[in-house]
Amino acid sequence: MSFEPPFADKSEQDETDQLRPQFNADGLIAAVAQDVETGEVLMLAWMNETALRATIETRRGTYWSRSRQKLWIKGETSGHVQDVVEVMIDCDQDAVLLKVRQTGGACHTGRKGCFYRTIEPDTLNLSKT
Amino acid sequence: MSFEPPFADKSEQDETDQLRPQFNADGLIAAVAQDVETGEVLMLAWMNETALRATIETRRGTYWSRSRQKLWIKGETSGHVQDVVEVMIDCDQDAVLLKVRQTGGACHTGRKGCFYRTIEPDTLNLSKT
Repeated sequence: MSFEPPFADKSEQDETDQLRPQFNADGLIAAVAQDVETGEVLMLAWMNETALRATIETRRGTYWSRSRQKLWIKGETSGHVQDVVEVMIDCDQDAVLLKVRQTGGACHTGRKGCFYRTIEPDTLNLSKT
Repeated sequence: MSFEPPFADKSEQDETDQLRPQFNADGLIAAVAQDVETGEVLMLAWMNETALRATIETRRGTYWSRSRQKLWIKGETSGHVQDVVEVMIDCDQDAVLLKVRQTGGACHTGRKGCFYRTIEPDTLNLSKT
């Protein structure tokens, strides 16, 4: 069953209590995962409708892999699962925020999160944190 | 001056200290703004190369408005500016995370942040926080 389409009226979309996600031209919505305890932003990935629905229903972070073009249950092979405590959606419903308990690293490099480099304003080089 | 292109080798891209952002087919990169004090994820928006460069150099959150198809200095009209404390980039360099001090609301609805609704797993309705 598909979700209802977004409201054409922007403020209706902003204030509705109905889930009416806006998927992009590729059928995807951006998803940010945040550690529910520390507040660390762990990663940004993409969900199609199936992934969003699976995440909400199974409480397990589930995405769409654009590189592999398949559903991707986070931690399915690595064991680094994401237990989803809360799924939030933004004003115009084109982005979701997952509050998660992350087992192991969320990042495929093995790090806790993917945002481990800061852009230095003077040199534009990256420094690792 | 354009940024250098991403490395073809994925682990080189993950570990380099060179800024080599991956823009999507529309020339955009996803940007998450997080309150540096509270950790609240305020919003998700998009930057083109000019917006990313302006954000890094001016320390003022600057985005690309997809609806208006123009550069958008956050708070330019509303006064709700974002002072950018830190700009981070993720492993494959296709998303940035801004640590910001947000004046007023980051959300156009007047709220502090855009993620003010939770998806209720049983009903799929949204509840406001």
